[in-house]
Amino acid sequence: MDRDAIAILGGTGDQGLGLALRFAKAGRKVVIGSRKLEKALTAADEVRAQVPDADVVGLGNADATQQARIVIISVPFEHTASTVKGLKEVLEPEQILVSMGVPLATAIGDGAVRTVGVWQGSCAEMVAALAPKGVQVVSAFQNVAAHRLRTLDEPVECDVVISGAKEPREAVMALCDLIPGLRAVNGGLLSNARLVEPITALLIGMNIRYKSPEGLGIRFTGIPE
Amino acid sequence: MDRDAIAILGGTGDQGLGLALRFAKAGRKVVIGSRKLEKALTAADEVRAQVPDADVVGLGNADATQQARIVIISVPFEHTASTVKGLKEVLEPEQILVSMGVPLATAIGDGAVRTVGVWQGSCAEMVAALAPKGVQVVSAFQNVAAHRLRTLDEPVECDVVISGAKEPREAVMALCDLIPGLRAVNGGLLSNARLVEPITALLIGMNIRYKSPEGLGIRFTGIPE
Repeated sequence: MDRDAIAILGGTGDQGLGLALRFAKAGRKVVIGSRKLEKALTAADEVRAQVPDADVVGLGNADATQQARIVIISVPFEHTASTVKGLKEVLEPEQILVSMGVPLATAIGDGAVRTVGVWQGSCAEMVAALAPKGVQVVSAFQNVAAHRLRTLDEPVECDVVISGAKEPREAVMALCDLIPGLRAVNGGLLSNARLVEPITALLIGMNIRYKSPEGLGIRFTGIPE
Repeated sequence: MDRDAIAILGGTGDQGLGLALRFAKAGRKVVIGSRKLEKALTAADEVRAQVPDADVVGLGNADATQQARIVIISVPFEHTASTVKGLKEVLEPEQILVSMGVPLATAIGDGAVRTVGVWQGSCAEMVAALAPKGVQVVSAFQNVAAHRLRTLDEPVECDVVISGAKEPREAVMALCDLIPGLRAVNGGLLSNARLVEPITALLIGMNIRYKSPEGLGIRFTGIPE
């Protein structure tokens, strides 16, 4: 396992691929995971096409998980539980699982401007409940628009709220420094993901109302320098 | 009833008094309501002390409600239902009730960094369920820090999300133009208050973590001009 590599499960999707591009551009080794190896390989090719010197590979989700300390779960909410369950045999105690899922009502065939209730309180807490003992879970990146991530020559200009225990939270906050215009805000305890995840549904509704081409973001004001 | 006056029930509290000061400074007639007339009169005196030419009166909640088309409910969440029930006899169909309450867990003796679940989905929807037929309810102003409102010589520098039916929502959005640095963002349907109200608990937690003297605010980025 490479402590500096970043695995992105579901790195073939819009937002996951956006993160892969940004981390690769910053010079970090990126491991793209997918349920289908073929799709992971195609996504890795796409990263190399846009970032010629990228250190990127495509693997199945379980193989990808074994290549990096930080594993970002960027699959649709309704595939999150099964994805985490599928990693039980490969996850090791020192690893950090990053939950960026949002329980959008698209999971049940309803709209992306609404959420469904999660028994554990949030997607991140569901991931924590399913993760093997010792694996630390951090909530992050939910509200950064895919289009902003993928427009590589422009800063993303948005804050993301990072929640979880101190050490893994700070490790994930440090990743944000790799992406121009992305600021990490300390979200405290993992359970605060209950307050953070719904913001994505709000932003999706606003994107529709305001027809924002790049997608809306948030900035918190009043944070001391 | 004065269509241009603004009534603020609970206008004796930190945030309500902040709004009263701002609206009075903008030249609008302000009616401060309180359960206790004495407290409303004292708050009106305080507004006059800071805004010498203020057009402001203090009244009991029911009397205050009869003086203005727009009635802002700025009482603690746990007093919201009883306040609205107490207005049943005086509210008229063309009036607009503005819910700025947040179901913070302080209502049950727990902390302000967490929320409690509301049967109707949000404080705003609870207000709508309790309001007499024809009265329109709008969700607004939840996340604007009291300290920012009360520092009259500085812009508040924050966005507020306004949700509800189109006509009353636009009437409340227009009020935001009266306060320098406050931008109204179209929050769509009233039920979106479910997504907006929890942001206040998140900001309160961040205020603690970041020791922000003026209180944190939010700005949405990517909204077309």
